Parts: sequence; structure tokens; C-alpha cells
Amino acid sequence: MPSSYFVADTIKTYYEDHGDNKSYPLILIHPIGGNILIWHHEISLLLKSGFRVVAYEIRGHYRTNMGRVGAYAMQDLVNDLHQLLEHLKIKRCSIIGHSIGGIIASMYAAQHQKNVDAIVLINSSPRKFKDKDLEKHFKTREVAITQGIKSLAEYKLKSFDETRDLLKDKRYSDLFRDVFTKTSIEGFVAATIALYTIPENVAERLQASRCKVFAIVGSDDDVFMRLLKETKEEIPEMELKVLDGSDHWVIIEKPKEMYDILMNFLERVQR
Amino acid sequence: MPSSYFVADTIKTYYEDHGDNKSYPLILIHPIGGNILIWHHEISLLLKSGFRVVAYEIRGHYRTNMGRVGAYAMQDLVNDLHQLLEHLKIKRCSIIGHSIGGIIASMYAAQHQKNVDAIVLINSSPRKFKDKDLEKHFKTREVAITQGIKSLAEYKLKSFDETRDLLKDKRYSDLFRDVFTKTSIEGFVAATIALYTIPENVAERLQASRCKVFAIVGSDDDVFMRLLKETKEEIPEMELKVLDGSDHWVIIEKPKEMYDILMNFLERVQR
Repeated sequence: MPSSYFVADTIKTYYEDHGDNKSYPLILIHPIGGNILIWHHEISLLLKSGFRVVAYEIRGHYRTNMGRVGAYAMQDLVNDLHQLLEHLKIKRCSIIGHSIGGIIASMYAAQHQKNVDAIVLINSSPRKFKDKDLEKHFKTREVAITQGIKSLAEYKLKSFDETRDLLKDKRYSDLFRDVFTKTSIEGFVAATIALYTIPENVAERLQASRCKVFAIVGSDDDVFMRLLKETKEEIPEMELKVLDGSDHWVIIEKPKEMYDILMNFLERVQR
Repeated sequence: MPSSYFVADTIKTYYEDHGDNKSYPLILIHPIGGNILIWHHEISLLLKSGFRVVAYEIRGHYRTNMGRVGAYAMQDLVNDLHQLLEHLKIKRCSIIGHSIGGIIASMYAAQHQKNVDAIVLINSSPRKFKDKDLEKHFKTREVAITQGIKSLAEYKLKSFDETRDLLKDKRYSDLFRDVFTKTSIEGFVAATIALYTIPENVAERLQASRCKVFAIVGSDDDVFMRLLKETKEEIPEMELKVLDGSDHWVIIEKPKEMYDILMNFLERVQR
């Protein structure tokens, strides 16, 4: 049975562990408002390519609870990942993270340099945000708290540049709704506030490590285009692939292109 | 009846409104782990001096609940204060804030420049923290979550420089215990994470306002000594009073000295 729960303190982290546990492990970490469902293309394709694929859900997202309190720092999410990998006895792996998932991957790789061969950042970066990058979430939190998660999904589809490409195809917007509305309001609020707690020196520590850094970003995702440009200055060896005409939800919009880039990156990882 | 609840959304903010509502209002905002009890000296003395004194409790602290979710940003606490002052129809006031209370006061004064004549920062500043200033709270949050608020009070008394003066006198440490243990675990965790969400430009905006800025700091409180030194560079007119041989919990340790300095400041406020 590939799915299970793993309990640490009062956090019950839902994960799925697919494929042969002798194969090289890839860890998938979803974005805020995401969960394992967002990776369905990648999981099946990466499995066919012979990887072991471990995907899990972060606190307050779908099948993972919030624990005793309703607030957490990024470091708590990094510790959750650490405990999951200890539980699974995974000593070396590569990590693919979308948005907040890539931040978790960056921090984990910076702190556990022996354990991580490569990270793939999808519309993500190891850099701190500016205040203005996070301002939109004052409104998203208000919508979530006062109107609920379904209203927030519609609000995001209507109001945000980051989701405009999802509306081009009903299958994309339907998948987005289906995934996003499984997030708890508490989880959404806590995660958007955790974004303020990224440490200052993550890129610097990654640069000093042996971990390879790859990045994929939609050309219309202004915030991560800027942050990845800054990251590239700190980590010149980082390989950055810009997907033209795409924005924040690139996994949903361009699964085929995403997978090709991913495989191209993974072929070059020293396992 | 001077005490009441004021409801905004699902946050039910407990406040006390003492004295004549024609008198000049002073707003008191407590630190993390504090509540109105911490101000008992100041409330009675300021009342005798003819002020109207409004004290309230921030989210998750003693008689104020957390609302629908367990995480918040500093701006949410500022909005709570704004709604309370609107509810009380207070158009002009001065605000005295200890630690996180002074951060709320600074942000509010920077955003509502017409409403605030002066702020008094007690072991507090309008500056962002450095990562290392907040690192101790990874441990305090863990103690709170895994052992509870009483254990956290003892941990703080034993482990922290900031509380070492409290142990000199049993009355001080007893008052600290009595006040601190009324905090909810959820409230403590959320507040320590909210400290990451202070905007970058608060001191700059205060400097551009007509609001007078006063500050009191214990000489042994290294973090706020540093932050207030930085603040003084941005706001040269700020009056800074250093209390020698005192640290973070100066209200408990030196109520008499505190009150004298406070009155000296308040006499010079243009009401």
C-alpha cells in the first residue's frame, strides 16, 4: 500500500511512497493551496522512468492536520520533512518543490547538505520575499476567513494574474478548484504567514553546498522571475528554465513541458 | 462598568476603559505573554493623574480569543486596535506599548498619523528583527506546545537573560507567573511568529509623521538596546531613556521608575 500516515508530535503528515524503495527517491512538495493531487501527471511519469516517488502534504493541507496550534514558521515545515525522511530511512534524495514546496526544499538542502543531491524549484526560490510580494495575502486571508475556501478559489481565479492561464482551459480551472478547495482555511492562513519567516542566508548556504539547484519559472510570474534572477546572482551554477507564456500554476498549465524539463534536469543529477 | 468585550468578525477583544471619557485617552498594549494585569500600577497611577486609560488584550492573550484561525500578521493586530478605537470613538490619543505592544503602537501611528499624538515604546522598537533575535522562540514554542504554558513560564524564568531580574524578588516572579500563565498556547505561538511580519518602513513613516516617539529600555535587554539605537538613527528626535540594571520585564521590575519616566514623557505631549 503506497499511502500512509506518519505521526510526529501532534502533526499527522499524510504521504504516499510510490515505486521500488531500492530506486532513487524523489520527494515532491506542493505549493500553498496544493496537495498530492496536483502532481498526478508527474507521479505516474516519474514512476515509469524508474524513480521512487515520495509525495506528502504540508500542515493544514488536505489530509495533513495542523497539530496543536494554528501558526508555524517555515522551519517547522522543514523539520516535518526531516522527520518524514528519517521515518522513511531516506538518506539521499532529490527534492522537487513548487512555490512554498521549493522554499522547504531549499532550506532543507541548506541544512542537511549530505542528504540532498539536487533540488528543483518550480516557481520558487530560496530568497526572502519583499513586503509587497506578500501584500496580496491580506486580502486572500480575509476572503478565506470570512467567505471560506471555495470563495477563495473563485477569487484567485478571477483576480490574480498568477491564475489567468488556468482560465484558458476548463480542465485546468476545474483541476485547480478541485485541488485548492481541499485546503483548510487555517492551513492556508498559517502558510501565507509562514512565508515571512524564510531565513536570510538560504541561497548563500546552498551555494556553499554540493547540492545542484535547478529552477523552472513561468515568464509571467513576476515575483519569482525577480527572486530567481537574484538567486542566480548568488548561485551562478543554478540552471534556470523560463517557460514563456506561463505563470504561477505551471504544473497544471503545462504538464508535458514541465515533465520534459524535469527529466532533462534529473538526468544530470549525480546520485 | 469599565470592562467590556468588543466584537469584530470573530475576534472578541477584551478591554477596560477607565476614567472620564472626556479626559485625554492613553492606550496601553501589553507584551507577548502579558495581559491587562501587568499594568495594574500604571493604570491606577495614570488614572489619578487625570487620564482616561484604555487597556486591552491582544489575540490569544487571557480574555481575548484567537478568532477563526490560529495565525496572524502584525497588521491584523494593528487592525484590531483600529477597530477598538473606532468602537470607542477615540479620535486622538497616545499609546504606551511594551514589546509587541510598542510594535503595534508604532505601526498604528505610522498608518493613522492624525490619530496619535505620541507613542511610548517600552523595551520595543519599530524596527524589523534579525533572524537571530527570534531564534530563541523555536525553543519557547516547542516548550509551550509539548509541555504547556506553566512549563514555559518556568523555562523563561530559568533560561532567559531577559527575566533574570525577576528572580531577585519573589513578588516579581510571582506576578510574572500569574500574568504569563493566562496566555493561551495558541496565542503565544501565533504572536511570536507574527514578529516576523513587521514591515520594513515603520520608523521611516513615523519620522515623517507629527507623532512624538519616546522609548524606555532596560540596559540589559540587548536586542532592544540595539534596535532602539538603530531607531534613533532614523528618528533623531526620539527621546530614549535607558534604565540601568534592568532588562525586558521593566514594568514588573521597576514600576516606580517606569511611572516617573512615563509622566515626564506625557507632560510634554501636545494634546
